[in-house]
Order: sequence, then structure tokens, then C-alpha cells
Amino acid sequence: MKFNNITLVIAMEAEAKPVIEELNLTEDTSYCPDMPMRGWTGQFNEIQLSLVINGKDPDTNLDLIGTQAATLATDYAIRQYHPQLLINLGTAGAFGENGSEIGDVYLSRDYVVFHDRRVPIPGWDKQSIGFFEVLDTTELALKEGFKSGIVSTSNSLDMPPIDEKNIRALGGEVKEMEAAAVGWVARLHDIPMFCVKAVTDLVDSGIPTEEEFRQNLNLATGNLKGAIVKVLNYLAD
Amino acid sequence: MKFNNITLVIAMEAEAKPVIEELNLTEDTSYCPDMPMRGWTGQFNEIQLSLVINGKDPDTNLDLIGTQAATLATDYAIRQYHPQLLINLGTAGAFGENGSEIGDVYLSRDYVVFHDRRVPIPGWDKQSIGFFEVLDTTELALKEGFKSGIVSTSNSLDMPPIDEKNIRALGGEVKEMEAAAVGWVARLHDIPMFCVKAVTDLVDSGIPTEEEFRQNLNLATGNLKGAIVKVLNYLAD
Repeated sequence: MKFNNITLVIAMEAEAKPVIEELNLTEDTSYCPDMPMRGWTGQFNEIQLSLVINGKDPDTNLDLIGTQAATLATDYAIRQYHPQLLINLGTAGAFGENGSEIGDVYLSRDYVVFHDRRVPIPGWDKQSIGFFEVLDTTELALKEGFKSGIVSTSNSLDMPPIDEKNIRALGGEVKEMEAAAVGWVARLHDIPMFCVKAVTDLVDSGIPTEEEFRQNLNLATGNLKGAIVKVLNYLAD
Repeated sequence: MKFNNITLVIAMEAEAKPVIEELNLTEDTSYCPDMPMRGWTGQFNEIQLSLVINGKDPDTNLDLIGTQAATLATDYAIRQYHPQLLINLGTAGAFGENGSEIGDVYLSRDYVVFHDRRVPIPGWDKQSIGFFEVLDTTELALKEGFKSGIVSTSNSLDMPPIDEKNIRALGGEVKEMEAAAVGWVARLHDIPMFCVKAVTDLVDSGIPTEEEFRQNLNLATGNLKGAIVKVLNYLAD
């Protein structure tokens, strides 16, 4: 696998900042200047790199999160940078019962799914879940010791019974809030994508996700920064 | 209120078709030709009209539904047509216990909300629900005998306990799958919006939504067609 033009899609500024610094990227103010979303560009070996985030809600000044913002950020990024590959980086929850640990870095496996789009009409049921294929990164995961799992997306940080039931039915191992939207937009444009997700919380720990998320955000984003360098080195070869 | 340039945002082709015919609109193939979304344009008295739908999933050939597709369709429409006002038209569920009946036409009241974006962190909780203000249509509702209610959005047709709890907490009276996404994109672009929703199903009837939806789609879209003419006549004055 060799890619010359890659866009990294990240939701929050706190997740992106260590990556931007590590890769020495420069802000690109021509990326959708009328919207909250922000973009950076740079070079990594032979790879032309871009990185976009959702930006801040204009009223609250808090990061935009979730699938609607990720949909726009991804679509704008594709139209601006015409990447050959999209990588969705971020933090996520995982299951302790699967052997996941805080700080683990996961690559996506098989496909990304929505566990909060339930439309019980034949055809629309499957379409709503999505099952958007991700690039096969088995070799990369083995080479660099990353875990791999099915990434499952919703617009919520919590996991009520209906969501837990659906995540389990879908074989979801990594729970987060953007990947399936990035996967959907990538598929509309026929661009391969995969995810790199660092674990901030164990959704079956009994501790509220928001507490674990706050405690472990620095650890996870630090691991994400290390991971993306390994990923890009692999993709540049 | 007087608007010269209005975009109608509708999810499904079956919802849009009677409106397109009634308003005698012509397909505009220059509207995002690389995407599934489709657009029509025309004139209503002094009003320059456009109408967009999500279009079909390229794999299944079923209508795209839900908030991610509505996000893109709305953003593309704003960039293509530069409307002064967005109206989100469609079918919806409502509560029999509120006196709603199949076929009722509702205008949105106060704001549109997401009942499936739960982020229990101060600031993000409210931001995720949205509370995107809608245009005040009190006078129009009175004049034409429309009902009015708070429109609440999720990506699911069903209503598990967590969703019902949130809809009730938010005072949601009209349950559907696009409005809050249209409202979010409209607010990003600082364009007023409101909703016109015709009731296909009573979410507290005990009958599965998908059954009532199929049975009542023709009745509801017929009423939607009649309603939009009254709405546009009012906005043209």
C-alpha cells in the first residue's frame, strides 16, 4: 500500500493538537473559512498530508462532536484536499471483557457501523447500520502491535440498554462518535478509509464514561500521536 | 414576513413528489451532480423556489434518510441556492395523547432538538440536544389552522425507553429523523428555518411505526402538498 495524499479526520482540538505538533502541520485558513471546521496541511516523507477537525460551536465555544459535524468536516476535506485515503483518528471506549485496556490503540476491522440508527424496515435496517468497509490494515496491525476491532458509532457518550444490545449484535469492539459518518462520506466519494482509535474508557467498567474520558484523554492522545507516525511510515513505504 | 428565495428540504422522494408536481418544479442537474442528493427549482409568485432531497443510496437504491444525509443535502442546497429561508418538509410521528391525529399538519414551534444525542458533560449536554431556534410561525399556524409543536429528531424510526424519556423531557411533540440536522446547518449559515410535518403515525398507538408509516404515507404527503401552498402564499404576502 502506498498513498501520496492522505487526510486525517479528527473530532476534537485536544485530540488533534499532539498530532498536529508531532507532524509539524501548518493551519490552512482556506479550508471552509465560513464554517467552524479547521484544517492543517504538511508533508510526511512523500505523503501530502491534511488534517481537519470539527472546530467549535459558535455559541458555546465547545468542540463540535458527533456524526453531523464529522459528516461536514469530511465532505469539506475531500472537496478541498482530494485525498486518496482518509484516516479517522480519535479516542474511544472499549470493552474490558474483550481484554481492552485504557490507552490501547485500535485499528478498525472489516467495517464501521452505526449502533444508533434503527430503522426496522427491510433494506433500510441494513442501510441505516451502514457496514461501510474499511481498508484492510491487518498487516499493519500485526507489524506494529496494534489491536484491531469493529468500530461502532453513535451520537451519544453513554450506553443505554438498546445501544449495548445493538453494539453486541454488531460485534462492536470500539465505541465512539464519528467513524461511521466519516465512512459513509468516504464511500459516497469512493475513497478508502480506516480508523485509528485510542481507548480513553472501558464502557463496561461501571465508571461513567465522562469521568474516564477526562482522566485518560492525555494518555490516549499521546498514544494516538505515536501511533499515527507508525501508521504513516507504513503507508509511505 | 416576506421571502424571495426559499429552499425546501425533504428527505424522501415519495414525500417530495407531490410537492414537486404541485409547485411545477423542474429538476436542476447542476445541484451536486457527484452525490445522490437531487434538486429542483421553480417560481411561486415572487418567490424563487428550490427543493432538495437526499436521493438514493448507491448500493441499495433506497432513499437515504436520517440526519447525516440531511446535513449534506442542506449544506449543498445553501451553497447552491443561497436561500433566505429553509423549510424542512416531511412526515413524522406524533402522540395520540396530545390529541394528534393521522394526517395532521404541524408547524415547528420554539426550536428543534435531537433526542438521541446524549453527552452528559456540562455544556456538551445542551449543545448536543441542539435547541436550534425555528422561525416564529404562530400567526401562520393560526391563520391556516395548522397545529404547532416542538420537533424532535433522531436517526431511528422506533422509540425505545431512553428515547421516549428524552422526548418527554424535551417537550417533543413531533418525532422525525431530519429536522434538527437541517436546523443545525441552517444556524451555521445564519439562515432562518422552520418545519412543516404531516403525521403518518402515532408513536403511542402500540402499532409499530413502520406499519402506520406505510399505511398513511399517501394521506400525509397529500396533506403536505396542500400545506406547502398555503405556507408559500403566506410567505409571499
